[in-house]
Amino acid sequence: MDQVKVGVIMGSTSDWPTMQKACEILDELGISYESKVVSAHRTPDEMFRYASEAEERGIKVIIAGAGGAAHLPGMVASKTVLPVIGVPIKTSALNGLDSLLSIVQMPGGVPVATVAIGNAGAVNAGLLAAEILGAHDPGIRAAIWKRRESIREKVLKESDLA
Amino acid sequence: MDQVKVGVIMGSTSDWPTMQKACEILDELGISYESKVVSAHRTPDEMFRYASEAEERGIKVIIAGAGGAAHLPGMVASKTVLPVIGVPIKTSALNGLDSLLSIVQMPGGVPVATVAIGNAGAVNAGLLAAEILGAHDPGIRAAIWKRRESIREKVLKESDLA
Amino acid sequence: MDQVKVGVIMGSTSDWPTMQKACEILDELGISYESKVVSAHRTPDEMFRYASEAEERGIKVIIAGAGGAAHLPGMVASKTVLPVIGVPIKTSALNGLDSLLSIVQMPGGVPVATVAIGNAGAVNAGLLAAEILGAHDPGIRAAIWKRRESIREKVLKESDLA
Amino acid sequence: MDQVKVGVIMGSTSDWPTMQKACEILDELGISYESKVVSAHRTPDEMFRYASEAEERGIKVIIAGAGGAAHLPGMVASKTVLPVIGVPIKTSALNGLDSLLSIVQMPGGVPVATVAIGNAGAVNAGLLAAEILGAHDPGIRAAIWKRRESIREKVLKESDLA
Amino acid sequence: MDQVKVGVIMGSTSDWPTMQKACEILDELGISYESKVVSAHRTPDEMFRYASEAEERGIKVIIAGAGGAAHLPGMVASKTVLPVIGVPIKTSALNGLDSLLSIVQMPGGVPVATVAIGNAGAVNAGLLAAEILGAHDPGIRAAIWKRRESIREKVLKESDLA
Amino acid sequence: MDQVKVGVIMGSTSDWPTMQKACEILDELGISYESKVVSAHRTPDEMFRYASEAEERGIKVIIAGAGGAAHLPGMVASKTVLPVIGVPIKTSALNGLDSLLSIVQMPGGVPVATVAIGNAGAVNAGLLAAEILGAHDPGIRAAIWKRRESIREKVLKESDLA
Amino acid sequence: MDQVKVGVIMGSTSDWPTMQKACEILDELGISYESKVVSAHRTPDEMFRYASEAEERGIKVIIAGAGGAAHLPGMVASKTVLPVIGVPIKTSALNGLDSLLSIVQMPGGVPVATVAIGNAGAVNAGLLAAEILGAHDPGIRAAIWKRRESIREKVLKESDLA
Amino acid sequence: MDQVKVGVIMGSTSDWPTMQKACEILDELGISYESKVVSAHRTPDEMFRYASEAEERGIKVIIAGAGGAAHLPGMVASKTVLPVIGVPIKTSALNGLDSLLSIVQMPGGVPVATVAIGNAGAVNAGLLAAEILGAHDPGIRAAIWKRRESIREKVLKESDLA
Repeated sequence: MDQVKVGVIMGSTSDWPTMQKACEILDELGISYESKVVSAHRTPDEMFRYASEAEERGIKVIIAGAGGAAHLPGMVASKTVLPVIGVPIKTSALNGLDSLLSIVQMPGGVPVATVAIGNAGAVNAGLLAAEILGAHDPGIRAAIWKRRESIREKVLKESDLA
Repeated sequence: MDQVKVGVIMGSTSDWPTMQKACEILDELGISYESKVVSAHRTPDEMFRYASEAEERGIKVIIAGAGGAAHLPGMVASKTVLPVIGVPIKTSALNGLDSLLSIVQMPGGVPVATVAIGNAGAVNAGLLAAEILGAHDPGIRAAIWKRRESIREKVLKESDLA
Repeated sequence: MDQVKVGVIMGSTSDWPTMQKACEILDELGISYESKVVSAHRTPDEMFRYASEAEERGIKVIIAGAGGAAHLPGMVASKTVLPVIGVPIKTSALNGLDSLLSIVQMPGGVPVATVAIGNAGAVNAGLLAAEILGAHDPGIRAAIWKRRESIREKVLKESDLA
Repeated sequence: MDQVKVGVIMGSTSDWPTMQKACEILDELGISYESKVVSAHRTPDEMFRYASEAEERGIKVIIAGAGGAAHLPGMVASKTVLPVIGVPIKTSALNGLDSLLSIVQMPGGVPVATVAIGNAGAVNAGLLAAEILGAHDPGIRAAIWKRRESIREKVLKESDLA
Repeated sequence: MDQVKVGVIMGSTSDWPTMQKACEILDELGISYESKVVSAHRTPDEMFRYASEAEERGIKVIIAGAGGAAHLPGMVASKTVLPVIGVPIKTSALNGLDSLLSIVQMPGGVPVATVAIGNAGAVNAGLLAAEILGAHDPGIRAAIWKRRESIREKVLKESDLA
Repeated sequence: MDQVKVGVIMGSTSDWPTMQKACEILDELGISYESKVVSAHRTPDEMFRYASEAEERGIKVIIAGAGGAAHLPGMVASKTVLPVIGVPIKTSALNGLDSLLSIVQMPGGVPVATVAIGNAGAVNAGLLAAEILGAHDPGIRAAIWKRRESIREKVLKESDLA
Repeated sequence: MDQVKVGVIMGSTSDWPTMQKACEILDELGISYESKVVSAHRTPDEMFRYASEAEERGIKVIIAGAGGAAHLPGMVASKTVLPVIGVPIKTSALNGLDSLLSIVQMPGGVPVATVAIGNAGAVNAGLLAAEILGAHDPGIRAAIWKRRESIREKVLKESDLA
Repeated sequence: MDQVKVGVIMGSTSDWPTMQKACEILDELGISYESKVVSAHRTPDEMFRYASEAEERGIKVIIAGAGGAAHLPGMVASKTVLPVIGVPIKTSALNGLDSLLSIVQMPGGVPVATVAIGNAGAVNAGLLAAEILGAHDPGIRAAIWKRRESIREKVLKESDLA
């Protein structure tokens, strides 16, 4: 099996329908990953262990999805110097605005690369992970360009409306 | 020295002018406390250690102030079953709405007792800690009642306006 | 019957599906409670009486749920020095943001321990009440730890995703 | 002295610079009023007494200003059937959005006539009280019309800009 | 037929399901009213005429419901010195927050008595109109007190929960 | 004097420092305009007259600035079929979010062309008026292109930073 | 075929149900238009080309709908001096508030004429385009007046409610 | 001179005081960069050229700061497959909430790695760029760890308050 390059983690199994979109992108681009539930509040020690060991395990990027007081991406980021991408999960009362602010408003010193709320954000988390890997891998860059080109063609083909 | 009953912690020295208000209340009510900077993002291991050891050190309540993606109260709460009071610090861009949502919107399972943004919240964090201790200490309850009564008298004395 | 330790009150019978989650936690942890509709606006005198008598009736913590201009938690808090936990009920137009701000933004002097909007908040209100009682009761603390451990195990068991 | 027609109350002396604008309007229109600090949270019993006795004291309208978790207007309204006008005071962190939502989002059954945040709201609270009295007093209506006409003339005179 | 005391107007027939709640209250309290669609944007001249003539037609209070850029209450208020009550209608995109701000944030000089968004607001608009009429009519005050008492009894009867 | 092409109106003289930016753009592009205070709430009849007569007076575009419950642009738009540009003025409590929503959230049937809050919006109102006139006037289009080109050159000249 | 006067573009086929409302208005008023999907992010070069060529193709107004980080209207506006109308599409998480702010808060120099979120906005985009064309075309102005008059009559006919 | 690894661009010279914080981090970590004003709205062609050529020029990461309708990061991202980090600049009316939503709410397909509003965000943009480079450069990872450790020591040294 390939070395796992991207760790996709989330605070709860209920985040999986969203986070799956990130995994689908990684599958599509042929990037190896693992996906796990790692909860900041319910399994804090396992979360710290995961974050601490990721670098030595050869992981290059971590994608972390969480909702509400979404502490997972920021706490993982505090325990690693790998790039951490945060996906704000849509929530029932505040529609993910709480998740977004809890993830993006990190204090200077520990960044989280935040993407959009919900599915679009998860898709982009997968693509951003690929871009980060692609910064040193022309093959991945080429694969992303190819994906973009095929989307562009699809848009152009459907462009004329009734 | 008295057994420390309340741990007052905050994410940064810049939170001290706010969190000091909590300490002033504890001083006023004769409740022993300690105050420390413990940063979720800059000293995550020390934060976990502080939270883990608080119970065995005899601390009964923890007050945690933080701003922005304010993870300190919730992460401390994930490592202790002592009541944790969260004080949202006012922030430069979003005025503390980010701090409030990051602290209060905890998932079911790990509560944080959240108070108002800024100084009023810090005052109330001190009082809430006292009320929690007072739930089993009639002397503290009496002290809080006395404080309330003196404030009530002050309001009544100044009640008539021009 | 056991001495009632926690008073669970709410502004309307329509709040019961949410507030029930708090009661389920108290049941689970074996903490005796009572649950009542006490409306700040429709039964103000009964509300004041409830709040005033709670301390002498031996109640140790009050949980109050309310929505919209949610005055119940704060007004109860103004008439007792017991810790009052406020649960913001989700509302139709503003999704509970109104409830949250009306409960959490208390002026310095009268604290309300605010939890998350809706069901997660009600669950955490039950747990926070238990933690407050647990501050002087190692048995309750042990029960909360046991609950946390079983949740942790459940998360770990389901952690690996497709 | 004239029978007091309007009771102007507020939660704190710090609300006076705002609430004074309401009193200035009442002075200008020759409507007798009284102004007092009556705090929902610090003097709850006095607040209830004030609200309960207003009707029998001959007061016709109550103006209540409050900030943050602004419970004063709504709680006064729960204890009287006189019209209660609520003025949301501007706050330090949330600029009065908290005050506005806490005042305006009253449940069906107990209305509060809410005006704008801050000074404009206080001016309009004075005018609204006058309009309410004017509904049965042509003299007051005439005075309000006269005020409007003079403002209209002022606007027209200054209408042409550089 | 009785002299119409309250004019209930709204910007669109789609506001009727909400505004009907105000009319039901007026029916219940035996207060005569009329209800009409009068649109600020689609029938501006008719709106001005309605507002201008209301006073001489003997109307004492106007209730105006509108959604989105809800100009109806404020524009009516600019053409009459009768008290105008504004009901913010819930909207599809912003849930009525736009309606609320457009109605409540009137400049100093022309007040609108604003109530809650949606149905609760419409109920309270009816009650507030009654309270305004009641300020000079002990019979209406008695009817409101009776309604409150019956609601209070209903709450007390259902107060005890499982 | 040239036929006035653009009417620049605003709700209050206090809006002039903002609205002046629109006039400066019109001056710069050589487009004739008039500027007036016309208040929706304080001079409603004059506002309606202004809006009704603009078309026959040869005005082609109206720019209307207003703050808070900013009814001026929408009400003017209800009385004319000329394009109306709305400028949301920054407000003291809600920073112009109230003005923005009150102006932009117009119901289907009566459009207001809304621009950004405050000075940038006023500048753009002037430019948008020019673009509207330019839709049938190549000379104005050329003048706008020239302005853009000179700004582009200025950006390029200052582009390299320390 | 008539010269196309209005270009209706949108970021995605999923915006079509909303943007169709703009086209229906243009159909109703007999204004020739074209409708296309042109994506700022997926077909940036085609977007720039469309914007650059619109003027020479004889288009007079562009209507651009987009959701979320809605860059289409503003980027098109940066490449043309034709008036650009922006329609904020309602979004899943933030209901179109993100679209609205991304479209309306343009910096000084490049205006976008923003309308309401969603369907009402699309209707008004069609009408605003007509008003812009009408500024130099009395026939279009007459058609808009006729449409308004028929709507006015419809409102008046249905004005009396139960 | 070293190959430039990071392109730091911003929409306006007024963004420089914020974006400078990103450059200071890159200086501190010894990472070569260039900084330029590239405006999405005022120099759209130069922006596209910058984005298109970055990859072949050997740039690995782009940091783009912008305020208001902040289109720069997203438009650059649409023209490159390099990772693009977006810094929301604090704005005068909406404090950067507009910038944040305009940057973070990108549609699926074109990610922008968004950081916090203002200075903390710019600091973190510098660090995130370093982490991205560090994903394939142990030396950079070591430098970031060293920086973190020195901050941790500073926090611990100042931890005891009062």
